[in-house]
Amino acid sequence: MRNGGLAARPAPAPPRPTVTSRVLDIIGAFTPDRPALTITQIARRAGLPLSTAHRLVGELTCWGALERDGTGLYRIGLRLWEVGALARGPVLREAAMPFLEDLYEATHENVHLAVLDGLDVVYIERISARDAVHVFSRVAGRWPAHATGVGLAMLAHADPELQERAIAGPLRGFTPRTITTGPELRRVLAEVRRTGAAVSDGQVETFAMSVGAPVFGPDDTVVAAVAIVVPASGWEARSLVPVVRAAARGISRALGAPRALRRPESARREG
Amino acid sequence: MRNGGLAARPAPAPPRPTVTSRVLDIIGAFTPDRPALTITQIARRAGLPLSTAHRLVGELTCWGALERDGTGLYRIGLRLWEVGALARGPVLREAAMPFLEDLYEATHENVHLAVLDGLDVVYIERISARDAVHVFSRVAGRWPAHATGVGLAMLAHADPELQERAIAGPLRGFTPRTITTGPELRRVLAEVRRTGAAVSDGQVETFAMSVGAPVFGPDDTVVAAVAIVVPASGWEARSLVPVVRAAARGISRALGAPRALRRPESARREG
Repeated sequence: MRNGGLAARPAPAPPRPTVTSRVLDIIGAFTPDRPALTITQIARRAGLPLSTAHRLVGELTCWGALERDGTGLYRIGLRLWEVGALARGPVLREAAMPFLEDLYEATHENVHLAVLDGLDVVYIERISARDAVHVFSRVAGRWPAHATGVGLAMLAHADPELQERAIAGPLRGFTPRTITTGPELRRVLAEVRRTGAAVSDGQVETFAMSVGAPVFGPDDTVVAAVAIVVPASGWEARSLVPVVRAAARGISRALGAPRALRRPESARREG
Repeated sequence: MRNGGLAARPAPAPPRPTVTSRVLDIIGAFTPDRPALTITQIARRAGLPLSTAHRLVGELTCWGALERDGTGLYRIGLRLWEVGALARGPVLREAAMPFLEDLYEATHENVHLAVLDGLDVVYIERISARDAVHVFSRVAGRWPAHATGVGLAMLAHADPELQERAIAGPLRGFTPRTITTGPELRRVLAEVRRTGAAVSDGQVETFAMSVGAPVFGPDDTVVAAVAIVVPASGWEARSLVPVVRAAARGISRALGAPRALRRPESARREG
């Protein structure tokens, strides 16, 4: 003991990593920029002795969670992807897909479906024309919610507690037009609730504009959002709002959201 | 010891399940027909004591491999889906998507992208119109390769050893038209290589026809297949072959397959 005193207790040892955490560290070693790894790279990235990595990777490969290709590199296995398809995002995607197709045909640009995970959006689906405006998003990629059309559409209808957490910041800026202050975000979220659509114009990349609308589930809580992403010049957000809202409403109805089965407010106003 | 003899050794104990296998059993407890489970159901399906299941599910939930919803049910978590997106199928999908869109617009029926896993096809992508002919397939679903257009297209170009394994059978029948004998499968695979396309007409469901073509990777081995699935009546396979082959070739070219960069044989013949 460091000070030799009778009353002193040894500093608590750091918790010993469990086998479960080691298995998850191995799976987590694979990332979008490093999707194929040697066993040595896996061991290093997971912080494991090579022998331990060998044994665990063997078990994971046997089950199909990892696959070894002809060159000896390991990748995430098809079986893990099959299991991953049971998560809430991809399940939702099945219901949404026909509406996303319709939305795609309306502009032949980019269409997004995303869900909220904390203060991030996770992109579940993207349909893009080969010559569409370039977008940062990637299926299974993440992005801060406050900067994107899908994110603002979901935040505006999220738990008040989550909204306050977003408003409290910090709010990272990506372009001079990104929302970076709490009061501004609060104002925009109110606007999204009023209009039923969220516009992110040049807030992620200056040349792209996204128009998103929220999707609701069977208990009328927000479960996802859809968006069209187009070049910032040449499109009017106003002209895209109705088609995006219609797609979001169609998906909500397919999911059995009570609010989507009622007559739309805009129809009452406009009718 | 059971027989008390000195020479007798105890029967080898069954290998004690490792923690890794327990973690994988928990993940594997979730299936397409049971995507949401209580902790008790997880324990039962994984064959684990409740206390063990509790501890492991806690670790998995903390990492994001599982998620607990408002009603206390567990599902596969978004993070596992994000990691699964790094598998060979979904990575391929990104390159294929624009071509699948083109293919979808040619018929407005069903479009499939699949990879081979042993003698099964695994569906990576499906684009379907709301009113398309009903198809059995599901994204991340499996089906025996010998019955489907995508499966025949891939088998025809697979390792000779894998082809022989398929030909050796057994070949399960789904309709009176399913290929169920080795010689018939061998003949069909040769035909697929000759024509560059595979037709599965009423072999999975009598009312559906699938026309598939193989996709090749940078080392010119088959890595996937695309197919159009239409109602068996009202469509001529012959009329669909060129568009399916063109899409498969486009994807192969995008993947950098040398054979897709050469002038197509049919162009030489037809030109």
